[in-house]
Amino acid sequence: MINDRFLKACRCEPVDCTPVWFMRQAGRYMPEYRALRAKHSMLELCKTPELAAQVTLQPIDRFPLDAAIIFADILLPFEPMGLNLEFAEGEGPVIHNPVRDHAAVERLSVIDGGELNYVAEAIGQARRALNARVPLIGFAGAPFTLASYAIEGGSSRNYLLTKQMMYCEPKTWHLLMDKFARVITGYLRQQIKAGAQAIQLFDSWVGCLSVGDYVEYVLPHVQLIFEGLKREGVPMIHFGTGTSAMLRQMRAAGGDVIGVDWRIPLDEAWEIVGHDTAVQGNLDPLALYAPLPEVERRVEDILRRAAGRPGHIFNLGHGILPTTPIEHVAAAIDMVHKLSARQVKS
Amino acid sequence: MINDRFLKACRCEPVDCTPVWFMRQAGRYMPEYRALRAKHSMLELCKTPELAAQVTLQPIDRFPLDAAIIFADILLPFEPMGLNLEFAEGEGPVIHNPVRDHAAVERLSVIDGGELNYVAEAIGQARRALNARVPLIGFAGAPFTLASYAIEGGSSRNYLLTKQMMYCEPKTWHLLMDKFARVITGYLRQQIKAGAQAIQLFDSWVGCLSVGDYVEYVLPHVQLIFEGLKREGVPMIHFGTGTSAMLRQMRAAGGDVIGVDWRIPLDEAWEIVGHDTAVQGNLDPLALYAPLPEVERRVEDILRRAAGRPGHIFNLGHGILPTTPIEHVAAAIDMVHKLSARQVKS
Repeated sequence: MINDRFLKACRCEPVDCTPVWFMRQAGRYMPEYRALRAKHSMLELCKTPELAAQVTLQPIDRFPLDAAIIFADILLPFEPMGLNLEFAEGEGPVIHNPVRDHAAVERLSVIDGGELNYVAEAIGQARRALNARVPLIGFAGAPFTLASYAIEGGSSRNYLLTKQMMYCEPKTWHLLMDKFARVITGYLRQQIKAGAQAIQLFDSWVGCLSVGDYVEYVLPHVQLIFEGLKREGVPMIHFGTGTSAMLRQMRAAGGDVIGVDWRIPLDEAWEIVGHDTAVQGNLDPLALYAPLPEVERRVEDILRRAAGRPGHIFNLGHGILPTTPIEHVAAAIDMVHKLSARQVKS
Repeated sequence: MINDRFLKACRCEPVDCTPVWFMRQAGRYMPEYRALRAKHSMLELCKTPELAAQVTLQPIDRFPLDAAIIFADILLPFEPMGLNLEFAEGEGPVIHNPVRDHAAVERLSVIDGGELNYVAEAIGQARRALNARVPLIGFAGAPFTLASYAIEGGSSRNYLLTKQMMYCEPKTWHLLMDKFARVITGYLRQQIKAGAQAIQLFDSWVGCLSVGDYVEYVLPHVQLIFEGLKREGVPMIHFGTGTSAMLRQMRAAGGDVIGVDWRIPLDEAWEIVGHDTAVQGNLDPLALYAPLPEVERRVEDILRRAAGRPGHIFNLGHGILPTTPIEHVAAAIDMVHKLSARQVKS
């Protein structure tokens, strides 16, 4: 590995400067990505390994990022499991046969991963194209976040149907979560075997829950995934948004790195998580729209809160938005490297 | 006042049992409210003092609640300020001329309250109808939450335009916040003079901000409102959702009672806020969909975390949803009273 800052930081080892990558770093804010999307649908890009690998490399070829992440979508396991998924233009994902009762959950297939071979194939191709420049991250959605899409039939404001199943049909809920946990464990193992050098579990919407509900209805299933993957020996990142009150419990569920959003100051988050665990974050993606001196002030603030302690991976608190000024993305990456290198020296 | 539990709890004075009211307690989950809404639009109900007072009393006549809250909407100041507001059926509020630049902010009128006399009138009528059974709460939206609607033109997922103005046009932002702060201060003072015995400031969406941004872009304006109303001598509640990481700063901004959502356990929230300040919350509104034994377990858990300490007002973490089973609302109110009375005795 030519640049192993990211992997070192995942293991809380010292680095020359803070590694940085951005969620959705391959996305609409890049003209080269928009050019490909003009010709192919989202699902086509994901399902064609050559294209997925090509998109994965786009931000790496343009910016001095410290990690690549395979281009895919957390909802890819839905179709082979029996969920009729569509990416409606401008509306986000739509599931045409949402899962609302026990029979529907029972019908879901616990796929063994063969159906998602195209992701493994894309990982292999991306690894070869990366040629050891930076490590490649694999990823999957976490059971709660996947369940919320499967039950609501798309994104949601208050997770009414999800919580109704959780509270009123706990057996159905746990069966659904168990199915997702088993599918995701196999899928992530397959990604690691195919060459993913770290993995990230996205529990993007779990922050809508109380801590008590997290512990009762989510944690055991997430734990199963992290336990099941431990012996694979790659660093595992556990990410969510709106999780300020449940960081300790997310840490207990598993992960070598805890991803935190911008709502909580990084030093407070790290204090809660414990300094023996790495943290990833936590610039507000919207802060990239600010004038550059303001971006710098914010990058500096996060690095100051990380205090040069080994085990910080710089990232946004959530994905880059499509209208983000691309030159601000470039500038932010440079700021992280330069300001943190100065911090290491001093 | 026949029942002054709520006012006592706001002042952290001991009570015989924990007072309870619910945000949106006058709402679609009640058949008598739906019957009125079938005949009148939302804005008609708000603008006709007889109807607004009637709706305010509906939950009080049905349930042994410990406070009434005037029926109104946080966006009522928009029209007289120059914002063209519409409640589109099933879509939430739409502002047809959103405020996106300095000139648009400059054009907004700092109304003196006369235009909202109908709310004061409704408060007077509701007070007379309540006949001292329970206290009446007045309310307004907080500057950030109002600004987000004014800028985005409705509700928002990531507050892109709001944060863009905040970060890129700070002078425009602060002018907008200052205008809202002045309007709201006058409007709440008017409500108090008309008979509101407590007020609540709804900063419902402020939890999308980092703590740093809250302190820089929001806190000073909120502080102005609470400072301006202090000498009126009524208890003031300061409410937001998703605020687990900023409760200390919200407390610093002002309020005798801090409203907290379900994401953070009540004892942790109270510890952060400080036990010299009252707290309000914090049952997940979705928990009211659970079977009654499960509702009871959750009510009990919150009361246990409040530990019988004076200064707890039981509420939801956000408004009641329209499809909530009405008999669960009734049951939850009873549980709060009975379980907390037992706690006081023991």
